[in-house]
Amino acid sequence: MDDEPELRRDPVTGRWVLIAPERANRPIALTGANPRHRTDGERVPCPFCAGQEHDTPDETFAIRAPGSPPNGPGWRLRVVPNKFPAVRPNAAAAPPVGTPGPMGARGLLDDEAYRPPRGVPDEHPLFNSAPAIGFAEVLIDCPEHVDDPTQLSDEQLRDVFRAYRERMIALAADPRLAHVAVFKNVGAEAGASLGHTHSQLVATPVVPALLRSELTGAEAYTARTGRCVFCDLIEEDAADGARVVARSANFVAVTAFAPRFAYEMWVLPTRHESRYEALTDAAALELAALLKRVLRALDVVGHAPAYNWFLHTAPLNADELPHYHWHLEILPRTARPAGLEWGFGCHITTTAPERAAAELRAALAPAE
Amino acid sequence: MDDEPELRRDPVTGRWVLIAPERANRPIALTGANPRHRTDGERVPCPFCAGQEHDTPDETFAIRAPGSPPNGPGWRLRVVPNKFPAVRPNAAAAPPVGTPGPMGARGLLDDEAYRPPRGVPDEHPLFNSAPAIGFAEVLIDCPEHVDDPTQLSDEQLRDVFRAYRERMIALAADPRLAHVAVFKNVGAEAGASLGHTHSQLVATPVVPALLRSELTGAEAYTARTGRCVFCDLIEEDAADGARVVARSANFVAVTAFAPRFAYEMWVLPTRHESRYEALTDAAALELAALLKRVLRALDVVGHAPAYNWFLHTAPLNADELPHYHWHLEILPRTARPAGLEWGFGCHITTTAPERAAAELRAALAPAE
Repeated sequence: MDDEPELRRDPVTGRWVLIAPERANRPIALTGANPRHRTDGERVPCPFCAGQEHDTPDETFAIRAPGSPPNGPGWRLRVVPNKFPAVRPNAAAAPPVGTPGPMGARGLLDDEAYRPPRGVPDEHPLFNSAPAIGFAEVLIDCPEHVDDPTQLSDEQLRDVFRAYRERMIALAADPRLAHVAVFKNVGAEAGASLGHTHSQLVATPVVPALLRSELTGAEAYTARTGRCVFCDLIEEDAADGARVVARSANFVAVTAFAPRFAYEMWVLPTRHESRYEALTDAAALELAALLKRVLRALDVVGHAPAYNWFLHTAPLNADELPHYHWHLEILPRTARPAGLEWGFGCHITTTAPERAAAELRAALAPAE
Repeated sequence: MDDEPELRRDPVTGRWVLIAPERANRPIALTGANPRHRTDGERVPCPFCAGQEHDTPDETFAIRAPGSPPNGPGWRLRVVPNKFPAVRPNAAAAPPVGTPGPMGARGLLDDEAYRPPRGVPDEHPLFNSAPAIGFAEVLIDCPEHVDDPTQLSDEQLRDVFRAYRERMIALAADPRLAHVAVFKNVGAEAGASLGHTHSQLVATPVVPALLRSELTGAEAYTARTGRCVFCDLIEEDAADGARVVARSANFVAVTAFAPRFAYEMWVLPTRHESRYEALTDAAALELAALLKRVLRALDVVGHAPAYNWFLHTAPLNADELPHYHWHLEILPRTARPAGLEWGFGCHITTTAPERAAAELRAALAPAE
C-alpha cells in the first residue's frame, strides 16, 4: 500500500501532483548538461532496441510486419507500459469502468480543478488525494538505437504522431480518464533517462494545471471576443511574420510571443481543431516534416539544446471546443530557472522571440 | 531601444514573462550539479565581499556601523541594484510616479491578469507588452565570503528578513509597482550565479503567475468556507502532526501536502497575517532560527541539495487580506523536471511529504 501512487491536490492553487514512490527505482537519469547526448549512463544493451523486447513490459500497441507476433522483433514502433509508472491502471480503490468520466461532454469547468476524480467517495475540504489511477506508457519511436528524433525519417516520425493518436483514442475509452499528457524528453537536461528516442504518455483522471490554465484562458478569450485565441494568433502572426519560423500547407511554426525559454516554439494546425485525435495520416506526415525542419534549425541556433516537446489538446471525450486549438510546444532548455521562475512563475529570457524566429529562419534547411 | 527590457503577457494563459536582452551579459552561471557549492566558476575577488564595494552599483539600503559612509566598508548587510537587471526603474515610456498602482487597495482581481500595467496606453487584444518598469536588487547577506545561508548567525539572518521588509516598504511607495518577488537561489542547480550568499528582489508592475494562482485559489477557498486556507492548513497540520517538521512560538515549518519537489517545505506564521511587511524584528529573529534548523535538516537528509527559498506575500499596498497568509517556501532541487512537469505542470515526487517530514524531524538539531 505504501507504494501505491497517489494524486494530490494543492489546497491553495488546486494544482494536482503525483506521488509515486516506485519511481525511485527507475534507472538513474542521464547526467550532464549539453551536449545533449551521452552514452556513459546508458544500460547496455539498450532495453528499447530491437531484440530486447523481453526487457520491457508487453506492448499495448505496435506497428509491425504483418504476421510478426507481439513482443518479438519485426516492429517499426512499439508502445509499452512504463516499467516505473507514476500512475497505475488498477490502483487501490479504482472505480469500476463504466461510470461517466469527470469531464462530461462539455470540456473543462473551472471548478473541476477542485473536484476529486470520479469514484473517490469523499472530498476533504483541504487535503484532497486520490489513488493515482491511470496509464503510463513509453512509445519507442524506432527499433534502431537512434538518439535524436530529427534522425527519424519523415515516415517514422509520422508513425509516432499516428501512435499518439491511436493511444489517445484507445485510452479515451476508459471513462475514469480525463486527460493524456503526451510528451518527449530529448537530452538529460530535459529529463530523459534513456537515450534511445522515445515519447511518453501519461493518462490521468484529472486535467493538469498548465493545460487547465490554457483552457481557462482560452475560454475567457472566446467569451470576450467570440473567436479562438489560437486562430487569432495564427492570423496575426501570419500578417506580421516576425515570429513565423516555417509553415507548410496546414501547419505553422512560430516562436511563442511570451516564452518561458528562449527559442520556445509552437506548431499549430492552421485550421481550427481542438482535438488532436482528428489528425489524419496525411497531416501527421506533413507535421513530421515541418517539425524536423524547425528542430534542425533549433539544433543549429541553440547548439543542440536539450528540449521537451509536448502536445496540448482538448481533454479526453470533450466535444469539439470552439475556444481550444491543439498544438505542439517545443521548450528548449536554454536557461537555468531560478527563484523568480520556480517561486513566482515569472520567466526571464534574453532573446526576444522575433529575433529568435529570424535566427531560426536563417538556419532552416530548404523545404523538400 | 533594442536592449530595453520588456514585460509580455502570454495571450492564452495571461502569464507575464520578462524579456531582458541585457541579462545575457551577466556572469556565466555556476556550473555543475550537487554538491551545491563550486568555486571554479566564481570571479576572484568576489564582488560581494567586503572591500569590493566598487564592484557593485551604489547601495540602496545597508546595515552598517554608525557613521560609516555608503559604498565603503563597515557594513553588515548591503542591498544594491542588480548589475544585470531584468527590469529598469526608468524603462522607456515609464508612466509618471504618482498615478495609482494597478492593484488598487483591494488586492487581486482575477481580471487584473489581463490588464496591462497602469500607464501603458493601449492594450492589444492578443499581444500585450509593456516596458519592464521595476527594480531588481541584490541583497548581500554578509560581508564575509559565506556561501551557505545556514552559516549565518541568527542575527545575520534576522537582518536579511528585516532588509526584505524594509525594501518592500520602500518599493511600495512607487505607485507603478504591484509586487516584489523576494527569493534566494542556493547552489548552481537552483540558478545561483555567484556563491557568496545573497538574496534577490524583483519589483514589477504586475503580479506574477504563481502568486496570482495562489491569491485566486485562496480567495475562492475563503468564498466557499469563510476561512483562510493557510490558517486551516496550519490547524489541520498541527492536529495531525504528520507533515510538521518544526515549530517555534509563532511559526511552523511543514512539508507541502502536494509538493513540486520532494522535501518542499513551507514556513508560515501561525497567526493570520497577509502582509510580510508587518513582520516585527523579534519575529524575524525567531523565523531566522527556525529556518536555519529546518535547512540544516534538509542538508542532512537531501545531501545539501540546491534550493530556492521565496517569499509569498500579498501584493504591494493591498489591504490586510482575510484570505491570504504570507509564508516562505523552500523548494529543493531534488529531481530533474521533464515533459510532464514543464509541459503540463504535473510534478512527480517519489517521497511522500509525511515521510519527508519524518526524515527531516529525525535530522533536526535540538532547538537552542
